[in-house]
Amino acid sequence: MSTSIKYITADEAVKIDQELMSDEGAFSLDQLMELAGLACAQNVARTYPAASYKRVLVIIGPGNQPGNKDIYKRLLKQCQNLHIPTLDSPEEFTKHYSSSTDVILDTIFGFSFHPPVRSPFDAVLRTIANPPEGKSKKLPIVSVDIPSGWSVEDGMQKLQDEQGGDVPTFEPEVLLSLTCPKVGVKDFKGRHFLGGRFIPDDMVKKYQMNLPPYPDNGDQIVEL
Amino acid sequence: MSTSIKYITADEAVKIDQELMSDEGAFSLDQLMELAGLACAQNVARTYPAASYKRVLVIIGPGNQPGNKDIYKRLLKQCQNLHIPTLDSPEEFTKHYSSSTDVILDTIFGFSFHPPVRSPFDAVLRTIANPPEGKSKKLPIVSVDIPSGWSVEDGMQKLQDEQGGDVPTFEPEVLLSLTCPKVGVKDFKGRHFLGGRFIPDDMVKKYQMNLPPYPDNGDQIVEL
Repeated sequence: MSTSIKYITADEAVKIDQELMSDEGAFSLDQLMELAGLACAQNVARTYPAASYKRVLVIIGPGNQPGNKDIYKRLLKQCQNLHIPTLDSPEEFTKHYSSSTDVILDTIFGFSFHPPVRSPFDAVLRTIANPPEGKSKKLPIVSVDIPSGWSVEDGMQKLQDEQGGDVPTFEPEVLLSLTCPKVGVKDFKGRHFLGGRFIPDDMVKKYQMNLPPYPDNGDQIVEL
Repeated sequence: MSTSIKYITADEAVKIDQELMSDEGAFSLDQLMELAGLACAQNVARTYPAASYKRVLVIIGPGNQPGNKDIYKRLLKQCQNLHIPTLDSPEEFTKHYSSSTDVILDTIFGFSFHPPVRSPFDAVLRTIANPPEGKSKKLPIVSVDIPSGWSVEDGMQKLQDEQGGDVPTFEPEVLLSLTCPKVGVKDFKGRHFLGGRFIPDDMVKKYQMNLPPYPDNGDQIVEL
């Protein structure tokens, strides 16, 4: 375990993202999303091997993924071509959580999340924190960047929905930090991985990220 | 070694490429290039580990890579950000071949190549086939899709330059076939890998590719 990797603030995370996609960094959104997705897939496969964990439920939020954006439409079409079913309501989510999921990939909220938790995500967080009837225990969770509902800088926090009702938070078993871990996960106790081996050394130095080396075999992730 | 994988024709290779990037396939060029590049990198790292083969000389040709295209400019900028030197002449290539290269990644010509070999690629092929003075033996080569100069359907062929002079061909130690091997490499004797694990099952069936399974660990390549 490297003790010296930097934990970055929300501002730094935004700046690094912008720099990667600037004329200077020259990355396209398609490229970065493909590499991020690949790191997520490899992390789930590494920690919850497909032999025992066949069914992965991916929860996406209101960030780069949904909406009317061209890239979202294309990625959705690619999922459909692979016959990956998509769920459109918290009720469907709860049903799938109960009956046909082995592990959850949590990418609901990222580093631009601010409470309160808007509908329908409040219902999703409630299901994750409190397994539905007939389900004896919680499913394992791999969170990306920051567990959904946590503050990027203050970590696990008290959450409320839009009506002021309490929304429970959760602590995932596994965390994948992309580019650099965020300040809010400094005390995270589970297995912690890093993804984003494409960050140029100059940027690593500029932001004093102090990243560990990635493995020579081409893996997209490294355990911290 | 799987004996039943399909070897596809040039026409089929073009059709599959077009289908992947159509509204139906929904892949962007950025996505496909990133995944192709990653498969190449992983293949070189697997067959010529960085501990012994530190310096990889990548030879690109007149396909999707060079030119004035936006994606080429962005990828070139990314290489510059990583301080990867670029060579602009056959003379520089010969010099680097002699003094500062451990392994060659050959992506000069792809499945749309037709003789004669245009300048400056004739000089590059001559250097690859006949090591320059002071170099006691040839460098190992990883070719992508089809060894440069080979016919996609007829394999190794007699080559000429634009003046009718003979141009030697070569047989690489390692071949990486993307999506599906091409008919022209059916008799290839070296180590043969497959990349392109993102091809949807429906397409695999439609074109009767009969691909082997990719490893569960997220690797982008599988040895045939």
